[in-house]
Amino acid sequence: MTIPFAAQIARLPASTPFVGPEELERRRGAPFRLRVGANESAFGQSPTGMAAMQAALAESAWYADPTSHDLRHALAARLGVAADEMVVDAGIDTLLGLTVRLFCDVGTPVVTSLGAYPTFNYHVNGYGAALHTVPYKGFFEDTEALLEKAHEVGARLVYLANPDNPMGTCHDAATVQALIDGLPEDCLLVLDEAYVEFAPPGVAAAIDTSNPRVLRFRTFSKAYGMAGQRVGYCVAHREIINAFEKIRNHFDLNRVAQAGATASVNDDAFLTRVKAEVEAARQSVYALADRLGLYAEPSFTNFVALDVGSTERGQALLERLAEHGVFMRMPGVAPLNRCVRVGLSQPKEMAEVCETIASLVPELP
Amino acid sequence: MTIPFAAQIARLPASTPFVGPEELERRRGAPFRLRVGANESAFGQSPTGMAAMQAALAESAWYADPTSHDLRHALAARLGVAADEMVVDAGIDTLLGLTVRLFCDVGTPVVTSLGAYPTFNYHVNGYGAALHTVPYKGFFEDTEALLEKAHEVGARLVYLANPDNPMGTCHDAATVQALIDGLPEDCLLVLDEAYVEFAPPGVAAAIDTSNPRVLRFRTFSKAYGMAGQRVGYCVAHREIINAFEKIRNHFDLNRVAQAGATASVNDDAFLTRVKAEVEAARQSVYALADRLGLYAEPSFTNFVALDVGSTERGQALLERLAEHGVFMRMPGVAPLNRCVRVGLSQPKEMAEVCETIASLVPELP
Repeated sequence: MTIPFAAQIARLPASTPFVGPEELERRRGAPFRLRVGANESAFGQSPTGMAAMQAALAESAWYADPTSHDLRHALAARLGVAADEMVVDAGIDTLLGLTVRLFCDVGTPVVTSLGAYPTFNYHVNGYGAALHTVPYKGFFEDTEALLEKAHEVGARLVYLANPDNPMGTCHDAATVQALIDGLPEDCLLVLDEAYVEFAPPGVAAAIDTSNPRVLRFRTFSKAYGMAGQRVGYCVAHREIINAFEKIRNHFDLNRVAQAGATASVNDDAFLTRVKAEVEAARQSVYALADRLGLYAEPSFTNFVALDVGSTERGQALLERLAEHGVFMRMPGVAPLNRCVRVGLSQPKEMAEVCETIASLVPELP
Repeated sequence: MTIPFAAQIARLPASTPFVGPEELERRRGAPFRLRVGANESAFGQSPTGMAAMQAALAESAWYADPTSHDLRHALAARLGVAADEMVVDAGIDTLLGLTVRLFCDVGTPVVTSLGAYPTFNYHVNGYGAALHTVPYKGFFEDTEALLEKAHEVGARLVYLANPDNPMGTCHDAATVQALIDGLPEDCLLVLDEAYVEFAPPGVAAAIDTSNPRVLRFRTFSKAYGMAGQRVGYCVAHREIINAFEKIRNHFDLNRVAQAGATASVNDDAFLTRVKAEVEAARQSVYALADRLGLYAEPSFTNFVALDVGSTERGQALLERLAEHGVFMRMPGVAPLNRCVRVGLSQPKEMAEVCETIASLVPELP
């Protein structure tokens, strides 16, 4: 029997797009000692959020509120939008998949940067939309090139992460606003702000949900330290949110995660502490770079792109780091792949990571 | 600006398909005292699973293993299949959505029973496939009618829940096997076994992953008491599992949930206790039916369909129950909608539910 897949599925090539640290640990036959490669937070969770999660475990038998009512209302109040201008789902990845489904038919043109967040591309390819890319400009996503390409191909969606993953750079609000204002007719901006809490004021463009051209994505995975809990949200024009409601899995949020996120939203003391600790950890990577005569790109995220000079040297460093029990990754596309991406951690672990890098760099090819 | 939705999205009508108990509580302005309407488990979680979840909370900052390696291997060993003949995702609902996407183009014929699990229909409609239904035969899904309709319309998918929701009935393995063996060319069975742990031996058709015509869905939401944690899985031919891997959200499983499910799989002492307590609770509903001169359909799930004689009486009963703080639901389609669906609970709560029903039935129209 030939399995009767849908037309678009039959066209998809086999792939293993995502290899997690656990799989690498199984291959090497030992756990990593330091896990600083997946942009996870090393700075804990909100104590009020953790207490709520502890308490909610006893309610694991109950489905979560499918509307995420309390979480949406808490976030909406914080952001100054209406609660029905927001949808919560199991992480930004899930929301990006729904977004592509909402706006893309087979062949619909979509624009992103070459080397930017791969999960968006994964969904674009999965739905058979046509992915167009423009190069980074140095270590920055090139908003002018994105705009030019969007006009050239008649894009339906343009993806921008601000701050950016994998480089940790960011644009100021005026640059993002210029991108928004310059979008072609019938083109929307997928604005991924997963790391926005780590950036200083002036990086996030003003939220204007009356403008249907911007879908803004945020998450509890990064500053809030809840990647394993899967809570992300999208803020957008009400009509777009209504469309998400027509296709999303209404019961896919974890009840414990929802409780934890709701109790964490306004824990500003926690966020302030995390931001300070992240900044201190950045400084230690910058100091390491100085010491080694390398370039570290100033970071607006919870990782730092450390330029080791070439892909070959970067790959050799990652391999040696793994031998020393340190899990780290690097960007996959030139010119970004001269760098390794150093996940920020607490002082003791950060010192260990930096010392290990310092001991290995002199031996690199 | 007219928002440029994809063609299939633009065709979808606005709807609010799922109303959870929390929304009903907000509308009535008070919490429910007894929550026995959403087929959730009232019988706790595996102690080993709960201990694993408590411990895993501290790792909330880490993404879960995207391959669910340990969970798949534990389940595969238990079921006698290979680990690559299984995919784990955030609940059966999520997997049903992916299944429709894998096999259905716009207009692809799909067959289910009128009044069966609505989330499957939600996804069929969401992807623009053509939903065909056949009536229940009494309170049973009619496998012969499903087969006949599948041949008539040239169905790509046929949905069967065994045991069934919302009626709690089931077919024996031979009947399900006859359905499988009789499927048209290019037609697959979506076999939803969410409640299979509550059924006696002989209800589940033998698992044969060499047959690409059967996708079998199971969950930790029911017998394992983890609905709020979102862990379901699909067992199928390797080539079908490979296709799921091309489109699913690889990081959408909650880390705590994954740890809890993995530690629960083989807790047979727990499952044995739950099954015994569910059986005792069924008996108390059967006894209530006898006492009231009503018919209770013998249940193979964690709820009992209690026939109160008419839709009007059923709706009146649900309204009065809500006034008494009891959340309960009923099937929406004739002839099933003569019944209310009594969720099974622990002895004290079960007695309270039964007494409340007993006090209200004499006042029904």
